[in-house]
Amino acid sequence: MNKPLVGIIMGSDSDLPIMQAAAQMCDAFGVPYEVSVVSAHRTPEKLFSYAKSAQERGLLVIIAGAGGAAHLPGMVASLTPLPVVGVPVKTSSLDGMDSLLSIVQMPGGVPVATVAINNAKNAGILAAQMVGIKHKEVCEKIENYKKQMQEEVEAKAQNLENIGVEAYLKEMNS
Amino acid sequence: MNKPLVGIIMGSDSDLPIMQAAAQMCDAFGVPYEVSVVSAHRTPEKLFSYAKSAQERGLLVIIAGAGGAAHLPGMVASLTPLPVVGVPVKTSSLDGMDSLLSIVQMPGGVPVATVAINNAKNAGILAAQMVGIKHKEVCEKIENYKKQMQEEVEAKAQNLENIGVEAYLKEMNS
Amino acid sequence: MNKPLVGIIMGSDSDLPIMQAAAQMCDAFGVPYEVSVVSAHRTPEKLFSYAKSAQERGLLVIIAGAGGAAHLPGMVASLTPLPVVGVPVKTSSLDGMDSLLSIVQMPGGVPVATVAINNAKNAGILAAQMVGIKHKEVCEKIENYKKQMQEEVEAKAQNLENIGVEAYLKEMNS
Amino acid sequence: MNKPLVGIIMGSDSDLPIMQAAAQMCDAFGVPYEVSVVSAHRTPEKLFSYAKSAQERGLLVIIAGAGGAAHLPGMVASLTPLPVVGVPVKTSSLDGMDSLLSIVQMPGGVPVATVAINNAKNAGILAAQMVGIKHKEVCEKIENYKKQMQEEVEAKAQNLENIGVEAYLKEMNS
Amino acid sequence: MNKPLVGIIMGSDSDLPIMQAAAQMCDAFGVPYEVSVVSAHRTPEKLFSYAKSAQERGLLVIIAGAGGAAHLPGMVASLTPLPVVGVPVKTSSLDGMDSLLSIVQMPGGVPVATVAINNAKNAGILAAQMVGIKHKEVCEKIENYKKQMQEEVEAKAQNLENIGVEAYLKEMNS
Amino acid sequence: MNKPLVGIIMGSDSDLPIMQAAAQMCDAFGVPYEVSVVSAHRTPEKLFSYAKSAQERGLLVIIAGAGGAAHLPGMVASLTPLPVVGVPVKTSSLDGMDSLLSIVQMPGGVPVATVAINNAKNAGILAAQMVGIKHKEVCEKIENYKKQMQEEVEAKAQNLENIGVEAYLKEMNS
Amino acid sequence: MNKPLVGIIMGSDSDLPIMQAAAQMCDAFGVPYEVSVVSAHRTPEKLFSYAKSAQERGLLVIIAGAGGAAHLPGMVASLTPLPVVGVPVKTSSLDGMDSLLSIVQMPGGVPVATVAINNAKNAGILAAQMVGIKHKEVCEKIENYKKQMQEEVEAKAQNLENIGVEAYLKEMNS
Amino acid sequence: MNKPLVGIIMGSDSDLPIMQAAAQMCDAFGVPYEVSVVSAHRTPEKLFSYAKSAQERGLLVIIAGAGGAAHLPGMVASLTPLPVVGVPVKTSSLDGMDSLLSIVQMPGGVPVATVAINNAKNAGILAAQMVGIKHKEVCEKIENYKKQMQEEVEAKAQNLENIGVEAYLKEMNS
Repeated sequence: MNKPLVGIIMGSDSDLPIMQAAAQMCDAFGVPYEVSVVSAHRTPEKLFSYAKSAQERGLLVIIAGAGGAAHLPGMVASLTPLPVVGVPVKTSSLDGMDSLLSIVQMPGGVPVATVAINNAKNAGILAAQMVGIKHKEVCEKIENYKKQMQEEVEAKAQNLENIGVEAYLKEMNS
Repeated sequence: MNKPLVGIIMGSDSDLPIMQAAAQMCDAFGVPYEVSVVSAHRTPEKLFSYAKSAQERGLLVIIAGAGGAAHLPGMVASLTPLPVVGVPVKTSSLDGMDSLLSIVQMPGGVPVATVAINNAKNAGILAAQMVGIKHKEVCEKIENYKKQMQEEVEAKAQNLENIGVEAYLKEMNS
Repeated sequence: MNKPLVGIIMGSDSDLPIMQAAAQMCDAFGVPYEVSVVSAHRTPEKLFSYAKSAQERGLLVIIAGAGGAAHLPGMVASLTPLPVVGVPVKTSSLDGMDSLLSIVQMPGGVPVATVAINNAKNAGILAAQMVGIKHKEVCEKIENYKKQMQEEVEAKAQNLENIGVEAYLKEMNS
Repeated sequence: MNKPLVGIIMGSDSDLPIMQAAAQMCDAFGVPYEVSVVSAHRTPEKLFSYAKSAQERGLLVIIAGAGGAAHLPGMVASLTPLPVVGVPVKTSSLDGMDSLLSIVQMPGGVPVATVAINNAKNAGILAAQMVGIKHKEVCEKIENYKKQMQEEVEAKAQNLENIGVEAYLKEMNS
Repeated sequence: MNKPLVGIIMGSDSDLPIMQAAAQMCDAFGVPYEVSVVSAHRTPEKLFSYAKSAQERGLLVIIAGAGGAAHLPGMVASLTPLPVVGVPVKTSSLDGMDSLLSIVQMPGGVPVATVAINNAKNAGILAAQMVGIKHKEVCEKIENYKKQMQEEVEAKAQNLENIGVEAYLKEMNS
Repeated sequence: MNKPLVGIIMGSDSDLPIMQAAAQMCDAFGVPYEVSVVSAHRTPEKLFSYAKSAQERGLLVIIAGAGGAAHLPGMVASLTPLPVVGVPVKTSSLDGMDSLLSIVQMPGGVPVATVAINNAKNAGILAAQMVGIKHKEVCEKIENYKKQMQEEVEAKAQNLENIGVEAYLKEMNS
Repeated sequence: MNKPLVGIIMGSDSDLPIMQAAAQMCDAFGVPYEVSVVSAHRTPEKLFSYAKSAQERGLLVIIAGAGGAAHLPGMVASLTPLPVVGVPVKTSSLDGMDSLLSIVQMPGGVPVATVAINNAKNAGILAAQMVGIKHKEVCEKIENYKKQMQEEVEAKAQNLENIGVEAYLKEMNS
Repeated sequence: MNKPLVGIIMGSDSDLPIMQAAAQMCDAFGVPYEVSVVSAHRTPEKLFSYAKSAQERGLLVIIAGAGGAAHLPGMVASLTPLPVVGVPVKTSSLDGMDSLLSIVQMPGGVPVATVAINNAKNAGILAAQMVGIKHKEVCEKIENYKKQMQEEVEAKAQNLENIGVEAYLKEMNS
């Protein structure tokens, strides 16, 4: 598992501060990945070659983030049989609602697995879950991650129950 | 002016009942056109070849209609220097708001000239106005069309003023 | 591959006319599946036992459809490490916008792979794509399906180009 | 009335700055309460045990706040016969509209008493009103609170009428 | 428990087909109730007298349904210390979104316990849950109701699992 | 008071079935009016001459109804010092939200008195209220109208209280 | 014309920074007015007495501003035959959309003349236009105001045409 | 090509910081243009004379930007046979959604070529594309511009692939 299994692409390098969370989750789950910029509207040829070659290059999943009239995830999905995860990036005036609808409302035949607005972290987890279908060790790491999340919340809850609202808020602000 | 100057394409033949109004306006203004189905998501190769060859085939404007996550107009615009008119078709559950935002909210550098939801008629007029920049006779026909619209409304207004609300409503319903 | 690999569940049997399209796509790609009703709000215990046992029962993916305040997909996702595909069903007054937002806007850590409103067909395809990560023969069927879609659209396009708009519309209506 | 009668829970400790207003209103009306963090998506088991044991532990009302795909109030409501008050927390990109719809649009059979976005204060008052059905002294405190609100507004109105707009605005800004 | 404990009012008798579900749930839980029409905009005096006298007449909860600029629930809440349940009725062009926001977005100090658009059934259940805080026998009936809902869904699920999708859909349509 | 005091105009004669309610209310309050069709987009010259001459022709108020990108009310308001009442007509795909925003969101300096979507009845009442500022007898008729509305609702309420929900619904449906 | 002709009220003194623009326009047009705070939800009795006495106290128009579930304008309109102008104040999380819909979507029989979100300036102008129906000198001042606006814009346009975009932007920023 | 071919107008000089991007694109493509302020609501006469004289003054395209109830682009389109490009300026409380709908939802017969909210840059490109229908040298410059955009994105992509996510983000922030 050294060659990239997940391709993470975005419509503009200005999406990178959001999209890096997908890479971080792949790192956390030990899933090798590659990152690049592919613009559906400014580099359509690269979109084609990237998506058409993805499967034979060994990728299992593609994560694509874009904002506004966000066509990248859907166009990639039209060009590859691999599952595509779409991240609606909040780049425009409309709170990301345009990004969300442009990505999620795909026609019958060409799905995009859409996550929440700006939630590249969840895109990384979802890609890892898909990789985990084939690679058991990834699946185990996801189970551990879920347990860890649970323990962290429970520790916070215990602390809040112990010290009360006001003390807890003071701790948060300090 | 016998070769097509306007290309009218749509994402699915189910859009044709809406999109035919664009063809009718081209007919009305004497603008030769061609009509076809090009799906961004199901025939991406055809999308590429159609858009890349449009200019050299002599087209001056492309009208593209699509619904839901409507990527056709924007993808065509990314692949040709010609102006592209986008028609948001109301195909989904969301009243066409998804189609509208997917088409109009294009990023800087790649405009789509968007018209109202389902308003392929206006797409045809807009394309004719663009053709009219080069072909004076088309521009004159548009001027006539505007006069005709004006006269029709004025005739209706005159009739309403003459016979009154109730009689007019009876005429409308009969 | 005889035991179910995909679990298809829905919040109410009234969602079945929509959700059956997911089952049909699994059939089309030769992916064994199971179908049931699990209501997050009316059968919360069944939700827990279903989701907690899914992985050990051999499921690879869960498809969950629900409408309104649609909590089923997200709650299943919280209880299993498997990838969960969410289908926003249009059951309420708000055109399915409530279903969509209730499903897609999951917090960091617990993704739901959301498809378009009422688009259970795409949920079935997406689940098959995930299964195809492990089972090559499913992936090949998806590739064939994409080719078939392409050929169908191209045949329609050819027909439209040959016979023209009016004749085509007559054929559609007859 | 020393044991908690109202349970105040939230999906994340980051909701506490909003949710503390519910606790403050319970304090104001002399209603004993408990506060904790229960995440529907990260601690689903705790969600179950908390909600299932609420009634026998003596709670009369549960207030649950959550944001985004906010499933906590509805899931608690599915697991207890107690009335549940839901607070849509504005945590996401969509102005809290996703939180609101995820909480209020519950299906028939499982209501959540929803208050305004971020309005945990009103959740506290509403819970006190419910407790007041059984405990008359709470009801009287609510009546006093309403009178006090009225007097405060009337005093402000009197002041504005006396000193005029400009002087009043100066006072506000000083 | 013979005198009405729940007052069910609505802004117009045209809301009655929606609002009757609240009465039916009160019947189901053995909660005595009264039903009337009180229009915030057309009978403001009745609104005042109704709301001001509600507590002394023995009511414990008021359910108010209204549509469009729906002011009835909030105005009643301003005039009584009793908890008020608001039902956004879908009467206007905007899918009930106007009704929902007019009811739920109350300012601090005056909550309305809002349920889903048109969901008077849930308003009835919520009112019964509040009455159940004082009257144990109502609370028990609600618990039974929840069990019954659960069994009904489980029976449907069992049937679907037994006979399969196609046979189940046939049964539904026959 | 024989010459028209209120001008009722609409962007298209297809708005007449909605707009006639404004005329009916003027009739009910004895306010003389005129009705015509003036399209901001198809008869802009008529728009100018109509609005510019309105005051000297003796009109006191103008009611303008339009749908979609509804510019008629705002453009009339820019061309006359008279108060202008705008009726957002629900003509497009977007439930009238486009009509509403196009009419109500006027910039500082040029107000349009906007009423509810499709609510030409209220436009007629509002115009009469304005006329009533000068003509006392109109104001008295409005007071009577309000009393009558009140009595009608109270009679319905009394009937509902007397015969109960089921009998009342039977009467409504018969 | 010394006694107030316009009553300007608002739901909270926190609305005053927005609502003062209405008073400023009344000043500009020489229309005497009064300003106060009247909360529909916190001072319902004052709402009643204020609205019921408005006409006999000599008011001709009432301007009411409120935010969120904004009931003040509509409730005043239900209690007086005078025309009521509503200002949707942007106080909540939803960009003022809740305020707008709560004010504009009034039922048949009880109009509120709604202006743009936060546009109390236009409310003042509209009220002056109504007063101008009776008082010619106010109407003339409005005509002058419109001419002045026109001249100001034309002067700016002339300046921009003379000095060009870059120089104009420098002037704006200096 | 020295006389202006494109007219760039806006409803207020406060739109100039947004609208200047249209002028910059005209400069970039060597398209002569003129810039002015024309307010549909405050200078309606200038709107008329500007739009009516545009064609004979030699303009080929008009770009009109406006916000809120944005009537300028549509009114210009009603008064000239030239194609009109509309820029929805985000000036109001509603994120520019009101501007967008007021511009794009034009009725049949009078199109406005609408671009994304605040995207005057795309309006300039679109106008240049239209001019390019007649003037080949403009069309060539647009082709070069598209190539340049492509190369810039590819260079960024190459850099990101070379140095990795973290180093790239550091470069961005430095």
